[in-house]
Amino acid sequence: MVVIGFLGPRGTFSQEAVKYYMENIRDNSDKAEEKEQNIIEQPFSSIKDMFLSLKKGEISEAIVPIENSIEGAVNETLDLLASDMDLSIKAEVIIPVKQNLLVREGTSFDDIEYIISHPQPVGQCREFISEKLPNAEIKLVYSTARAAEIVSGGEYGLKAASIGSSVAADVYGLKILAENIQDNDNNFTRFVVISDKDGERTGKDKTSLVFSTENKPGSLYRILAIFNLWDINMTRIESRPAKKKLGQYIFFVDIEGHREDDDVKDALTMIKRKTSFFRLLGSYPAQNHSRTQSQVGK
Amino acid sequence: MVVIGFLGPRGTFSQEAVKYYMENIRDNSDKAEEKEQNIIEQPFSSIKDMFLSLKKGEISEAIVPIENSIEGAVNETLDLLASDMDLSIKAEVIIPVKQNLLVREGTSFDDIEYIISHPQPVGQCREFISEKLPNAEIKLVYSTARAAEIVSGGEYGLKAASIGSSVAADVYGLKILAENIQDNDNNFTRFVVISDKDGERTGKDKTSLVFSTENKPGSLYRILAIFNLWDINMTRIESRPAKKKLGQYIFFVDIEGHREDDDVKDALTMIKRKTSFFRLLGSYPAQNHSRTQSQVGK
Repeated sequence: MVVIGFLGPRGTFSQEAVKYYMENIRDNSDKAEEKEQNIIEQPFSSIKDMFLSLKKGEISEAIVPIENSIEGAVNETLDLLASDMDLSIKAEVIIPVKQNLLVREGTSFDDIEYIISHPQPVGQCREFISEKLPNAEIKLVYSTARAAEIVSGGEYGLKAASIGSSVAADVYGLKILAENIQDNDNNFTRFVVISDKDGERTGKDKTSLVFSTENKPGSLYRILAIFNLWDINMTRIESRPAKKKLGQYIFFVDIEGHREDDDVKDALTMIKRKTSFFRLLGSYPAQNHSRTQSQVGK
Repeated sequence: MVVIGFLGPRGTFSQEAVKYYMENIRDNSDKAEEKEQNIIEQPFSSIKDMFLSLKKGEISEAIVPIENSIEGAVNETLDLLASDMDLSIKAEVIIPVKQNLLVREGTSFDDIEYIISHPQPVGQCREFISEKLPNAEIKLVYSTARAAEIVSGGEYGLKAASIGSSVAADVYGLKILAENIQDNDNNFTRFVVISDKDGERTGKDKTSLVFSTENKPGSLYRILAIFNLWDINMTRIESRPAKKKLGQYIFFVDIEGHREDDDVKDALTMIKRKTSFFRLLGSYPAQNHSRTQSQVGK
């Protein structure tokens, strides 16, 4: 039996990512016999609980958000990857964030007096709200699932709507009154699949690492010079506080290539020697998100 | 009259930053006649509203959080600085984040059954809570001010506590039952003071800029090479999504020196030519946060 953890509750974009991963990525890379096994999707209430459960061997894989094209990095994921849990990235999954206006069956636009939502979807749908529901009162709650649950519960009758994924509509028995209501069509979330081992070489891979430099002028520059020397393309650099002192940072870097490629192997050996903290987060097949967009798009 | 905006409501760490700025930084740098003027502190409900008000000339300066030594960057501030409002950083202010357990007069530890708080202070005081209040039920609310207000309002009698700054205790008439209850003593927030012009040269300055590189391999490396060539120390690099496409970023960089220093001026001229988007955010006196710590510490 294979158990895959995701950030719950059910009906979030994380569950959409699990679905996409299992249908399009996992079965291509994992052994044939695993396809025959039962796969269970298990929701977790926090990213940290998911990492702990994985570390204890209670689940086999965890799918966690790592960056969004509008909001930026998911700090909790980065901080856990840098911690000493020593888990690896075995895959990446990129899905579009499509928001929908969710209502109880029978509700029309004219009925809606309240929008019940977490602040993030409201921020992502400002244009739609000011155009179609300019007089609705916005009531902020702590999660998108809680918002859907309140609308579904019926305490507001047919006067309330919430904002969420199409999976949330299924889970809470709500109707989609308007779909793709987000202001920005370039809203994608990149998830990573965490496991006890990383991915095998496919020829089109990425490698993630995290390190801290010595605290002296030019030390980050000298690390990046190593990638440049070995002609390795860096696709992302993200800094997080080292948490010891304001002004000290750790750096998350994604590069093209697999850790078993000769150039990558040499560069990583050098970087390990030139950094005060170094952790290889793993190599995994690179996804092309334009392709993902058309495959997932509705 | 000078009006300084800060992120309200009253009683937050932002108001502590305003106080520190006026007492220790502003009066040293601004003209003597301004000291005689009336200074008004005006709370705003969002960082964006504060920027808009500054742009319209309704306030003279705005003090906004930009990074925290544990949580990392404040994304809203970075995104507004990169926008075309064309405002400048004229000062930085660094203050320690000290959390306190706030209760109604007459409450003792044994009375406390509920902790009413925003999730962030709860996250910062986990060790204290599990040691001193392991059985308290945590009720999450949307702001630290709202939490203090609920405790102050008395609906829970003497059974509730909230977590917040010492300024919040004053504003909401609460008593500090325990002080400095945060797990980590390295918790500092760096604020910047935004205005229509940046700071004059003092000889010990920092300069902030934001740029995006051409979307080809090694382009960030080549920008950092310019700083290296001119022997300029970079104290911070932070990436944010360009919001056009997943995988494209803009970079916020802080360097040592003033934009009028010869080397800095030359390097910035080169960088402006080698980037597809460039904005100088301003030069301002560098603060030493160890010194700040001892001056602000209680």
